[in-house]
Amino acid sequence: MSLTATPAHDAVATAPELCAFDAGALPAARSTRRFVLDLRLELRHAGPRAVVVRGEWTGPVDAPVVIVAGGISANRHVTGSDADPGWWQAQAGPGRAIDTDRFRVLAIDWLGADGSLDAPIDSTDQADVLALVLDRLGVTRAAAFVGASYGAMVGLQFAARHGHRLGRLVAISGAHRAHPYASAWRALQRQCVALGRSEGGVSQGLALARQWAMLSYRTPDEFAERFDAPAVIDAGQARCAAEDYLESCGRRYAARWTSTAFLRLSESIDLHRVDPADVQVPTTVVAIDEDRLVPLADLQTLVESLGGPACLRQLRSRFGHDAFLKEEDAIAGILTDALATCRGGAA
Amino acid sequence: MSLTATPAHDAVATAPELCAFDAGALPAARSTRRFVLDLRLELRHAGPRAVVVRGEWTGPVDAPVVIVAGGISANRHVTGSDADPGWWQAQAGPGRAIDTDRFRVLAIDWLGADGSLDAPIDSTDQADVLALVLDRLGVTRAAAFVGASYGAMVGLQFAARHGHRLGRLVAISGAHRAHPYASAWRALQRQCVALGRSEGGVSQGLALARQWAMLSYRTPDEFAERFDAPAVIDAGQARCAAEDYLESCGRRYAARWTSTAFLRLSESIDLHRVDPADVQVPTTVVAIDEDRLVPLADLQTLVESLGGPACLRQLRSRFGHDAFLKEEDAIAGILTDALATCRGGAA
Repeated sequence: MSLTATPAHDAVATAPELCAFDAGALPAARSTRRFVLDLRLELRHAGPRAVVVRGEWTGPVDAPVVIVAGGISANRHVTGSDADPGWWQAQAGPGRAIDTDRFRVLAIDWLGADGSLDAPIDSTDQADVLALVLDRLGVTRAAAFVGASYGAMVGLQFAARHGHRLGRLVAISGAHRAHPYASAWRALQRQCVALGRSEGGVSQGLALARQWAMLSYRTPDEFAERFDAPAVIDAGQARCAAEDYLESCGRRYAARWTSTAFLRLSESIDLHRVDPADVQVPTTVVAIDEDRLVPLADLQTLVESLGGPACLRQLRSRFGHDAFLKEEDAIAGILTDALATCRGGAA
Repeated sequence: MSLTATPAHDAVATAPELCAFDAGALPAARSTRRFVLDLRLELRHAGPRAVVVRGEWTGPVDAPVVIVAGGISANRHVTGSDADPGWWQAQAGPGRAIDTDRFRVLAIDWLGADGSLDAPIDSTDQADVLALVLDRLGVTRAAAFVGASYGAMVGLQFAARHGHRLGRLVAISGAHRAHPYASAWRALQRQCVALGRSEGGVSQGLALARQWAMLSYRTPDEFAERFDAPAVIDAGQARCAAEDYLESCGRRYAARWTSTAFLRLSESIDLHRVDPADVQVPTTVVAIDEDRLVPLADLQTLVESLGGPACLRQLRSRFGHDAFLKEEDAIAGILTDALATCRGGAA
């Protein structure tokens, strides 16, 4: 999975026509366009800024647009080929629940993901960026917004601010606000990064923050199954069974991400607030019982407070917050149901 | 709460008589003796060592002895006066559930707590230290061992290894092994300390580890009640509502503890394993539904596997793992029941 744009696939598009679909006869797996847009917007906390936004869309040029957004470490490459799979390949692609034969999937790299924007970033900023991207691409209305984790927060914000441009929202494991305990957790992850930065161990701090993130994404039950061996003494220190796995997660993350990108996107989750009453598009909220970051009770409150038609789909999963990546069949069923009635948003 | 011995109260006791109770006519609140013992023992992982053990006992000289032990940051000063309260003042003292008019409370500073032992420390080592302390004090048998958190682990280990010297065990929020998820959590806390140490920020790393510990001790429900305010932008960065509280916890801890003591006692929790079948003394296990470190299921397994009479007392508490410090009435009731039948262990 590439997290920065492959230059060969990129073209800086300053006019919508550069983004026009030009390969209608190619197989769906190859009908992907990457784009880079120079935008100006008013950041909620940081004021006016010029930003570069990288995106990708996949699917027939005349198909209804479905915006897809994942967690803070997801990117624009949602679906691709076997050789270059997207981060949600299981759900988005030809014949999948988000069917790229039927929908045109649109996704961006999060504002801040390239580490060049060192300022507080709000979910409203991400929502406004997506609206500007639709403008530039000449899309008046998206048939649906499917967001998971931070993507669900941005989806709620997009629906609240630009609801007239949206047909339906699917919000998986993301609520109208961050839970205070989860915010405290992320604040400590940011302190890990700050400790590393202040003391010269940037990469170690970032890797450690990622390891803590893994503990918040997953569940005790999964760890009990995978890492039940007793701690051992290694070089005079106790070493627990899960440490190899966690350290590997941390190292891989630190190799791909900058500390600025992590800090600003992590903060963005905690700055997020939306009034559910402002969300009036039909909405499917998906909750995981075991999610330790986004408690079921918060998503129940969200569904009860939404301003439009809403339903709650509830799953059990030992993968907790990561269920949207792991529970492929259950998530596919929910997405298929939610998108069944989506009709073409006029491009 | 003093964590190191106040020199004025200490006397190095190398013979039992130095520890004899010599103030039987004083009010119970003042009938406290501190002692310091030089011991030699065979550490499970680190071999033979000379160690210094600091302890305190409180109560009538001829009363049944109750060993009391808390978490890794607890100490020998369990009960005291209003001017110098012990860490479990709510439960131990004259007329309290662990009644120092009726029992003689014995407690030690954990082996390793002074930071002078930089080697893996096992719960078996702590149990053996307590047995040696009983020898030195001339106590053949303790009427009860009341342990919470790490103290419960050591209590189980003491019962398994020295059960003939124990009348009854009360094990609160501690099991026969650390849960793999909780072990992973502590491993990451230790990485925080290691990051600080390697980069010159020892105190910051230790303070950060303590903040993570607070998240494991408490519950999302408590945080939701206390810290529901939105994050704010402070000096260009998001700051969450719980951060002041957590940072204060971290700073206070780092001022009192050494990183070596923290690392070695934290490891000790993860090295702990005991076969429940080896515990044959009557045992009361206390479980908190919301405990995120010691899941109810592990304590149910423990109770089902114990080698002697056992009962499970289950509580609900929004304080999670810290319930033994916070749910004063409920814990007092359980302790009163459990100690009701305790009779004098011959000194």
